[in-house]
Amino acid sequence: MNEQIGELNPPDRLMLTPGPSSIHPRVYRAMSSKMVGHNDPWFVSMVMNEVQVLLRQVFRTENRITFPISAAGSGGIEAAMVNPLEEGDEALICVNGTFSQRMADIAERARARVTPVSAPYGRAVDPEDVRRAGKGKKVKIVGVTHGESSTTVASPIEEYRKVADELGAILVVDCVSTLAGMPVDVDGTPIDICFSGTQKALGAPPGLSPITVGARAEEILRSRKTKVQSWYFDLTTTMNYWGKERTYHHTPGIPLIYAFREALRMVMEEGLEASWERHRSNHHAFIAGIEAIGLKPFVTDPARRMMTVTAIEIPEGIDGKKLQKQMLDEFDIEIAGGLGPLKGKIWRVGIMGYTSQRKNVLLVLAALEKALSDQGFRVPAGAGVAAAIRFFSETRAATAVK
Amino acid sequence: MNEQIGELNPPDRLMLTPGPSSIHPRVYRAMSSKMVGHNDPWFVSMVMNEVQVLLRQVFRTENRITFPISAAGSGGIEAAMVNPLEEGDEALICVNGTFSQRMADIAERARARVTPVSAPYGRAVDPEDVRRAGKGKKVKIVGVTHGESSTTVASPIEEYRKVADELGAILVVDCVSTLAGMPVDVDGTPIDICFSGTQKALGAPPGLSPITVGARAEEILRSRKTKVQSWYFDLTTTMNYWGKERTYHHTPGIPLIYAFREALRMVMEEGLEASWERHRSNHHAFIAGIEAIGLKPFVTDPARRMMTVTAIEIPEGIDGKKLQKQMLDEFDIEIAGGLGPLKGKIWRVGIMGYTSQRKNVLLVLAALEKALSDQGFRVPAGAGVAAAIRFFSETRAATAVK
Repeated sequence: MNEQIGELNPPDRLMLTPGPSSIHPRVYRAMSSKMVGHNDPWFVSMVMNEVQVLLRQVFRTENRITFPISAAGSGGIEAAMVNPLEEGDEALICVNGTFSQRMADIAERARARVTPVSAPYGRAVDPEDVRRAGKGKKVKIVGVTHGESSTTVASPIEEYRKVADELGAILVVDCVSTLAGMPVDVDGTPIDICFSGTQKALGAPPGLSPITVGARAEEILRSRKTKVQSWYFDLTTTMNYWGKERTYHHTPGIPLIYAFREALRMVMEEGLEASWERHRSNHHAFIAGIEAIGLKPFVTDPARRMMTVTAIEIPEGIDGKKLQKQMLDEFDIEIAGGLGPLKGKIWRVGIMGYTSQRKNVLLVLAALEKALSDQGFRVPAGAGVAAAIRFFSETRAATAVK
Repeated sequence: MNEQIGELNPPDRLMLTPGPSSIHPRVYRAMSSKMVGHNDPWFVSMVMNEVQVLLRQVFRTENRITFPISAAGSGGIEAAMVNPLEEGDEALICVNGTFSQRMADIAERARARVTPVSAPYGRAVDPEDVRRAGKGKKVKIVGVTHGESSTTVASPIEEYRKVADELGAILVVDCVSTLAGMPVDVDGTPIDICFSGTQKALGAPPGLSPITVGARAEEILRSRKTKVQSWYFDLTTTMNYWGKERTYHHTPGIPLIYAFREALRMVMEEGLEASWERHRSNHHAFIAGIEAIGLKPFVTDPARRMMTVTAIEIPEGIDGKKLQKQMLDEFDIEIAGGLGPLKGKIWRVGIMGYTSQRKNVLLVLAALEKALSDQGFRVPAGAGVAAAIRFFSETRAATAVK
């Protein structure tokens, strides 16, 4: 059998999925730089510092505890739940999709008393419902998913902040699919615990989950009565490695940190606001394009749409899986389908990080048109691409946005 | 500040640490191959299968549940503890160093009733002590660290297997620092749950923890009364992704999986026995060398020494940290110091994976001699290198071992 396991020979994909996104050649190059040990003086005094400096800028925070966890974004959810929560603590979790449901599930596994506050898929949770659910309870955390990438709904963080303040709770926000692609302001809001993933708008490979913990949340971690149930995700001990002491905790994936450093550097070279604007602009062009084709965004309220990933309803009579396969086979473009209850009902197209470029908006619209036509869907010829071109032409500061 | 964060420019280190080890150019090349998505048909039908086929060969198992966890080796410890253990379960953990202590700590965090069975650092836990500790208890798991890399003691797996059988317990073995560098035979022994790290004898970058779960342990996982406390490390749900269904669980670090695949391919190209023999031979040459220099291996019983990492007592009057710094500055060689109670008392030298080569044995001995001499340690000139050369010359099948 082994004879058949030859040299790795990947296809040349454009990844327009809810993550991972395709990454820039500079990020590949950094990732494959000569590896050093996690205790190497150069690594602990230079690279780790630099990653933390850049990461604080991207999170807009001065939080001491700010570093990438050695895990996927879901590991970030786990760290954000198991660290502040102890058995019996009250947690209000806004649930409006797969990833926010995951947050509630993880909080339950941490033995918290979890009250899920739900919204129909495609909507944000009503902050008023959170307020009501918290009444009379000693709520420890309010958890919300900024960009629920299973439905592509963006939730209004500031409103939950107000509710959390009224309830005396800390606010935990999942920014896995939004950081660097939409405004997130950890110190401004403030968000007590915020985490992300590297493989989305940040433009790095998957495998790390950057997290930041504010002073108030840190105080909660320090005054726990019991040990955090997860050793691996215990933030205060992990922080001994990422903190001044640089005390060994576990061995991080050095090449991923190299890659992440370069991706962060590119975000800050562009500028955070410019990165948000690029995502916003390409998102709107894409929306204009799919609507001109005759497709419907799954999220009906434009104010609640993520700028990084867009869910599209699969039209009546169209085989969604077949279209995805054609996109892949004919154009080497990967888009995603729906998760859980939305399986077979939506496509999800991620245009973020390095892939948030005008050329990709035009290309994916053209490819969609071709694949839809082949299934007999009546597409006004070239309408999607034309609408996006029109949008770009009308957008000011065109040179600033790729 | 950002202006100072320039292009990544790592020093060119030879990593002779307890991990990570330096990796082969082929592994770098595979790692930086064009990334695809974790749901890409090529990835799920080809790459994942191939990784699992190769990994089963390296573990010597046909276990269905065999895949790399998206975490460092310590994540493997956590997965191996939190999956079989439920609140109140009895766990006997052999503790003879930092990593086995970590296993006990994690089992406690999983709310098991943990009985640590200890041995002095530098020794293996006496299987008789495990037997005694288990008497009259309904023991669910016996946990042991095959290569306790904090002390470089190798424990005799088969003997704990016998005890576990007598107690009706499953056997969980940490092979983070030994797999592919010393004989491990998951189905032969058998080991019920076995896990490793990629950055040691396997020759890949850090960031993944391969694990395998036998039928008996799988039955325990399936008949749990409560959910696994960790969502991230829940093996049965993760196995929905790595199993036939390929159902999304979390996004793994694709480039690390590329790299790991190539490293596994190289292990099997060489052959597992040849890899063990290479590590054994280079270990013995290194031991001959340090003894000729006048240094003492920390593990006094040769039968209990790991073949992948060797701890050396820091001689009276020598500044261990200063020597490490000189090795790094003058020769670009990283070796490690001691952890916890062994800090300042030992050095640890890893010669494993791609770094287990004759040239590295000779080089590190020469560098040690130079650095020791500079601190006034009386070294018989060239004795270490000479002893290793003699060992190599006397070793048969010399061409088979690099």
